[in-house]
Amino acid sequence: MKKKDIEQKVKQAVKNVRKQAPLAGSITNSVTIDFVANAQLAVGGSAACVYMPDEAETIVAAGGALYINMGTIEPIYEQTIPRAAMAAHVAGKAWVLDPVALGIGNLRTKLMQKIAEYNPAIIRGNASEIIALAKLWGVCNESASEKTQAKGVDNMADTNAALPAAIALAKKTGGAVAVSGEVDVVTNGKVLAQSFGGSPLMPYVTGTGCSLGGVCAVYATVTEPFIAALAAINHYNLAGAFADSHKATTGPAGFKVAFLDALFHATPKQIAKNKLSVETI
Amino acid sequence: MKKKDIEQKVKQAVKNVRKQAPLAGSITNSVTIDFVANAQLAVGGSAACVYMPDEAETIVAAGGALYINMGTIEPIYEQTIPRAAMAAHVAGKAWVLDPVALGIGNLRTKLMQKIAEYNPAIIRGNASEIIALAKLWGVCNESASEKTQAKGVDNMADTNAALPAAIALAKKTGGAVAVSGEVDVVTNGKVLAQSFGGSPLMPYVTGTGCSLGGVCAVYATVTEPFIAALAAINHYNLAGAFADSHKATTGPAGFKVAFLDALFHATPKQIAKNKLSVETI
Amino acid sequence: MKKKDIEQKVKQAVKNVRKQAPLAGSITNSVTIDFVANAQLAVGGSAACVYMPDEAETIVAAGGALYINMGTIEPIYEQTIPRAAMAAHVAGKAWVLDPVALGIGNLRTKLMQKIAEYNPAIIRGNASEIIALAKLWGVCNESASEKTQAKGVDNMADTNAALPAAIALAKKTGGAVAVSGEVDVVTNGKVLAQSFGGSPLMPYVTGTGCSLGGVCAVYATVTEPFIAALAAINHYNLAGAFADSHKATTGPAGFKVAFLDALFHATPKQIAKNKLSVETI
Repeated sequence: MKKKDIEQKVKQAVKNVRKQAPLAGSITNSVTIDFVANAQLAVGGSAACVYMPDEAETIVAAGGALYINMGTIEPIYEQTIPRAAMAAHVAGKAWVLDPVALGIGNLRTKLMQKIAEYNPAIIRGNASEIIALAKLWGVCNESASEKTQAKGVDNMADTNAALPAAIALAKKTGGAVAVSGEVDVVTNGKVLAQSFGGSPLMPYVTGTGCSLGGVCAVYATVTEPFIAALAAINHYNLAGAFADSHKATTGPAGFKVAFLDALFHATPKQIAKNKLSVETI
Repeated sequence: MKKKDIEQKVKQAVKNVRKQAPLAGSITNSVTIDFVANAQLAVGGSAACVYMPDEAETIVAAGGALYINMGTIEPIYEQTIPRAAMAAHVAGKAWVLDPVALGIGNLRTKLMQKIAEYNPAIIRGNASEIIALAKLWGVCNESASEKTQAKGVDNMADTNAALPAAIALAKKTGGAVAVSGEVDVVTNGKVLAQSFGGSPLMPYVTGTGCSLGGVCAVYATVTEPFIAALAAINHYNLAGAFADSHKATTGPAGFKVAFLDALFHATPKQIAKNKLSVETI
Repeated sequence: MKKKDIEQKVKQAVKNVRKQAPLAGSITNSVTIDFVANAQLAVGGSAACVYMPDEAETIVAAGGALYINMGTIEPIYEQTIPRAAMAAHVAGKAWVLDPVALGIGNLRTKLMQKIAEYNPAIIRGNASEIIALAKLWGVCNESASEKTQAKGVDNMADTNAALPAAIALAKKTGGAVAVSGEVDVVTNGKVLAQSFGGSPLMPYVTGTGCSLGGVCAVYATVTEPFIAALAAINHYNLAGAFADSHKATTGPAGFKVAFLDALFHATPKQIAKNKLSVETI
C-alpha cells in the first residue's frame, strides 16, 4: 500500500463514519467509560456499553464492530468477554482488543489467553502491553524484543522495542496492531506506518488510550483494520496537537475539552493528511 | 391545567429544590453516572448512587424520590431494581424510570416486566423506548403507533409516533411520561405539553437523556409527576439553548461544560417561561 | 511539629511526587472514578483502579499506597476490600480510607468494621462520616461529640463537632485523620492543622472529596500520613480558590475544569504556603 492510497482510504473511512453514524458496542473499563462513549460520538459513531453476556452478543449483532477494553475486570466478564469475542468472530465482525494492564490478576490473564483464538481485527496498546500480549500468545520471544529495544532512538525507544511483538501479533491475527507512544505505530504485518502529533498533556488525562481504542472500533465498522487503526490514530494526533495549541488549554482538563471538540471538528481531509510515514516491512 | 398554572407550579418547584437540596437516589448506568450526579447537584438537588439491594431501600427511605436508569445492567440488579421500585411504591414515593435500551438482553426485559406493577411516577425515554415499553407492558398495540407515525411532521416524526404509547403508559401508571426528541413532549394522559429549545449538539454528548431522568427525580421530590417532568425538561431546553450560544462552546465537550453551568444559573422564572405549548387530550 | 517544618515537608512531598510519578492504586466508587484518576494524574501521580481481590493485592504490591473509597459497594467487594486493606497492612504500606456513606447498607458497615484492624494511614471524610466511623470503631462516645458541637462557631460547626472523633481515630490508627468542611482539619492525634481556601462551588461538583482521598494516597507514597493529608488538602484548597477566581469559571462544570488544571500547575512552594494554622493538642 502506498501512502497516497492509505490517505485516500482514511479520508473515505472518516466520511463514511460521519454519514452512517455506525454502532460500535463496548465492554470497557469503568474509569474511562464516559470518555470512550463521548469520543465515539464526537467522531461521528454511535456507542453502547454492556456488562451482561447475552447483551454483548446482542450488540455484536446490532453493530458493525466491537470494542473490548480490559482496564477493569468484573466477575461477570468471565462469561461476557469470551462470548462477546466469539460472537464477533463467528459473525465475521471486527473487534478491537485493548489489553490494558495485562499481567495484573488471574482472570484478566485467563481471559486474554482464551480470546486469542478469536483473532481481534485490531490490537491497541502501549509498548509494554503489546510485548506482554505477544509473549502470552506465544508469538514473540523475549530476546527479539530486547534486541530491538537496544537499538531504539530516544523518542521511539518504547515503541521500537514493541515492533517485533506488534508485527508478530499482526501476522497471527491477520489484522492490525497499533502501538501508542510518543510516535504511534500501526502495522498489519506487511506495512508499517508512523503517525505524528498529539500532545505531551495526553498522559495526564486518563483514557486517551482507551477512547482511541473505542474510536478504532468505530472506524473498523467501515473499513479494513489497518486503515481503521490509522484513521483513528491520525484523528487523535491531529486533535491532540490542535487542542494543545488551543487558547482554552491551560492544563489537562481544559485540554480534554478542547481535544474532544477537535475530534468533532476535524475534517476528513485534515485527518487523512496528518503527518504520516509509511514503509514496507 | 392551564399554561399559566403550569408555569406557576414549575417556578415553585424550581424554587423549592434550590431551597431544600432534596435527595433523589439513583440506580443508574456506569457510562453517565457522573453526569447524572453532577446535573442533580447543578439544579440544586442531592445525589446518591447505589448497587446493593438493601442500600437501594435505604436511599428510598432517606430521599424524596428515586431514579432507575436501565442503561447498563449488572447481575446484582436482578435483586436491586425490583426491591428499589417496590420500596418506593410501598412508601408512596415517586420513582422515575428510564427504560434505556429496552430489548437488549434477557435480564433487562425481565426487570422491566417485573417493575410494571410498581407504577413509576415518571417514565422518560426516546420515542422508540417509549413505544417498546408500552408494548412490553401491553398498553398499546403496534398499529396505533404506526398510524400516528404516518401523520408525523418532519421534526416531530419520532415523538409523534410515540404519543399513543406515551398516553397509554401515563393512563396505566397514573403518572407522567416524557418523550425526548427534537421537541420534547410530556403527558399525564389528560394534558399534553411540548417544550422547545435544547441544542443539536445534545446527541453528541452521552448522558443528556440519562441526566434529564435524574433531574426529573429531583423535581419529583417537591411536586407532582407532570410538573416535575416539565420542570426538568424546560430546565434542560433552556440550558441547552443557552449553552449552544455560549462563547466557550466549540463542540460537544465545551457544550457539556457550558450546559451544566447553565443548569446551575437558570432562574426559576426563566425555567418556567421556557417556550411551551399545552393542549388537552 | 512546627509550622515551618510542616511547610518544608509538604513542599518536599510535592516535589517528590512530581519527580517520581508514584502509583497509588484505588478501589473507588463508580460515580467519581474518572475524577479520582484524573486528579491523581494532575498532581503528578499514577493511577490504577481495580475490582477483583487478587488484582487489589497486586496493585498494593506494585504501588506505594492504596486508596479505598466506600462510595459505591459492589458484591465482589466483600472479598476485595478486606484483602486489599490486609495486603497493605501486611506490606507496611499506607492506605487511605474514605468512609463514604457509612450507615447505608449491611455490607458497607460490615466491611468498615472488618478493616478497622488494618489501621488506615489516613482517614478522610466529612464531619458526619468521621463521627460515624469513630462510633463504629468504638473509639468515641456520642456525648463527647455532642458537647463539642454545641461550642462550634458557625463556619466550623460541623468540623468542630467531629474533632474528638478525629483525634480518637488518629490515636487508634497511629495515622492521620482529615475532616473536610468549610475549613479543613487534619490531625495525627498530637497536632491539629487547619487549612483554608477552596470554593463554595465545591459542593456542587461530585467527587471533590473522593478525589482528595485519592490524592492523599498519592502523597502517602512519599511522606508520613499527617504530611501527606496536609499536602493534599493544601493542594486542593489552593487549586479550589484559584479556580474559583478563574475567568472560565461560570459554574460548577467550568470550575471543575479550572480546578484540575490548577492542581496540575500549582507549585510546591505555593502548596506549602497555602494558608494554614497549626496547634498542639
